Amino acid sequence: MLLIGRLLSKTSPSLLTLNRPFLTPASFLSYGAMADVKLRLVQFETASSPQRVGVQLGDGGSVVDVCAAEPSLPRDMRSFLQGWDTNLPLAAKVAEAVSSSSDHIFAAASCTLKAPIYDPQKLLCVGMNYVDHCKEQNYPVPQEPIIFSKFASAITEPNGAVIHPKETDSLDYEVELAFVISRRGKHIKESEAMSHVAGYTVAHDVSARDWQMKKNGKQWLLGKTFDTFCPLGPAIVTPSSLSDPHKLGIRCRLNGELVQNSNTEQLVHKTGALVAFISRFMTLEPGDVVLTGTPPGVGCFRDPPIWLKKGDVVECEIDEIGKITNTIIQ
Amino acid sequence: MLLIGRLLSKTSPSLLTLNRPFLTPASFLSYGAMADVKLRLVQFETASSPQRVGVQLGDGGSVVDVCAAEPSLPRDMRSFLQGWDTNLPLAAKVAEAVSSSSDHIFAAASCTLKAPIYDPQKLLCVGMNYVDHCKEQNYPVPQEPIIFSKFASAITEPNGAVIHPKETDSLDYEVELAFVISRRGKHIKESEAMSHVAGYTVAHDVSARDWQMKKNGKQWLLGKTFDTFCPLGPAIVTPSSLSDPHKLGIRCRLNGELVQNSNTEQLVHKTGALVAFISRFMTLEPGDVVLTGTPPGVGCFRDPPIWLKKGDVVECEIDEIGKITNTIIQ
Repeated sequence: MLLIGRLLSKTSPSLLTLNRPFLTPASFLSYGAMADVKLRLVQFETASSPQRVGVQLGDGGSVVDVCAAEPSLPRDMRSFLQGWDTNLPLAAKVAEAVSSSSDHIFAAASCTLKAPIYDPQKLLCVGMNYVDHCKEQNYPVPQEPIIFSKFASAITEPNGAVIHPKETDSLDYEVELAFVISRRGKHIKESEAMSHVAGYTVAHDVSARDWQMKKNGKQWLLGKTFDTFCPLGPAIVTPSSLSDPHKLGIRCRLNGELVQNSNTEQLVHKTGALVAFISRFMTLEPGDVVLTGTPPGVGCFRDPPIWLKKGDVVECEIDEIGKITNTIIQ
Repeated sequence: MLLIGRLLSKTSPSLLTLNRPFLTPASFLSYGAMADVKLRLVQFETASSPQRVGVQLGDGGSVVDVCAAEPSLPRDMRSFLQGWDTNLPLAAKVAEAVSSSSDHIFAAASCTLKAPIYDPQKLLCVGMNYVDHCKEQNYPVPQEPIIFSKFASAITEPNGAVIHPKETDSLDYEVELAFVISRRGKHIKESEAMSHVAGYTVAHDVSARDWQMKKNGKQWLLGKTFDTFCPLGPAIVTPSSLSDPHKLGIRCRLNGELVQNSNTEQLVHKTGALVAFISRFMTLEPGDVVLTGTPPGVGCFRDPPIWLKKGDVVECEIDEIGKITNTIIQ
């Protein structure tokens, strides 16, 4: 099982026995080994069972129902992240054991992927964070991150519909790399930031440009946080699963046409710097999500601008993480 | 028991018996009667027991441990609000029954009031929402509410310390009337808004003016959401407990000196209008908190400005609701 091979090579073979719950699962992996865990964590549901945490076997692959195999694992992602040091190695181990048999595995077609988290305490966003996106607007590259937010009520599933509110005539797409916090922290050093990051996912930072840029006293919040304005998914992919989170192709297609096409190496402030900066202001909590900004090509800076309309299909894709697809409805 | 007298006059006398849990508590009050419930809901802790929901018998009064008296009542406020139609009448009834004996009552001195809610999904704020505050800045009175936000991680207890971050040299006070959402809703009509409002509380919207107004791309979020920048309390006071929520004296004292002194009748956009406006954008959820804006007198518009410093004591007070007192620490 390639996905978690590096984990298992560091664990005791005796721990692979799964016929009883683990008593001390947290103790069997050092942080160094934790950082090596290659896993795709999802929330999913099936026709017969409600939403729960699962492990996806590769992008678009089958899902291991780790909560069914190991009832001590929390069924919702925020709880899972709150017990990260226990739950990550346990889920990895359970997934490894389960995947060698047919028990507790659902083929991709037989389950529905949900957003990997619905109830973060914080849903932070970074503005003007791609060098090429700043150039597109003739905006100076910010020396410090610009932080704004959405509410968790905006989160919807990776392939969910985006509602075009009647309040806007300037609906726009933005593909973004997002990361999710595992361990709580304040004043986190950049050098230690990655020990607070559970993994990466794809976000669609849907934006009503009139409300973002012209109305609401030019505070961006309202234009960013209509219901369904934050599709997330398909999975939270642990950092070591990625060749380099800051060197991934990132693109957006509108009705099949490539409209954003960049690379996360263009990020001005990268994961470690963002964790360090944000945690100067506030305590980061397990489950907090940070959308790291969008590359160039958004609709509002085109001439003429492109605004999303009913029936449009937006695909947001990041290499090695996956793709989310959202249809605009009214 | 004056506080809940109007509730009880509308309930069946047979329901006053408390020797068994209610099986169908939601059914015994119509919405009209619900709206009449006069109650001060708090979260509190004692030396021997952790934080839970209680009913405060008047501002500064004893607290009825309704969760101990009736174990079916949720112990945290967000859960309590999620089951509002069941829990409000039940808590009122329990408080009435309990308060006639000495069981389950804690004198004010023997318990510590906590923030009435710590984990709202949304902590919304309204800018420029007092007529006299707009005049103070020569800012036109906004035709529509200006909405920004804090994160729940900023919430601290009503008499908690406010940490002066080293990141700012422009720390300012703002007393605000806040309301808390009970029932979920989207596109709520102004005429129906009050059926979604659990009650009112006092908020201290602590603000780092440099980060709010000059830095972070002029997005207010960071300057508003440092840890401890949102003391809340002392209680969520149901609307019918107040003579008129939009005609209450509101004031702030800094080290005993009156620095803000206005009346909620100066609010530009009042509760109903705010609920209707905000719910055009997003689904309001039980527990969501809305800070309605601050009256004039804040430190940053004074000449010379007043900035909060270590050791300062800020008292935020609203008639009929109560007072919260926060010391600045570093």
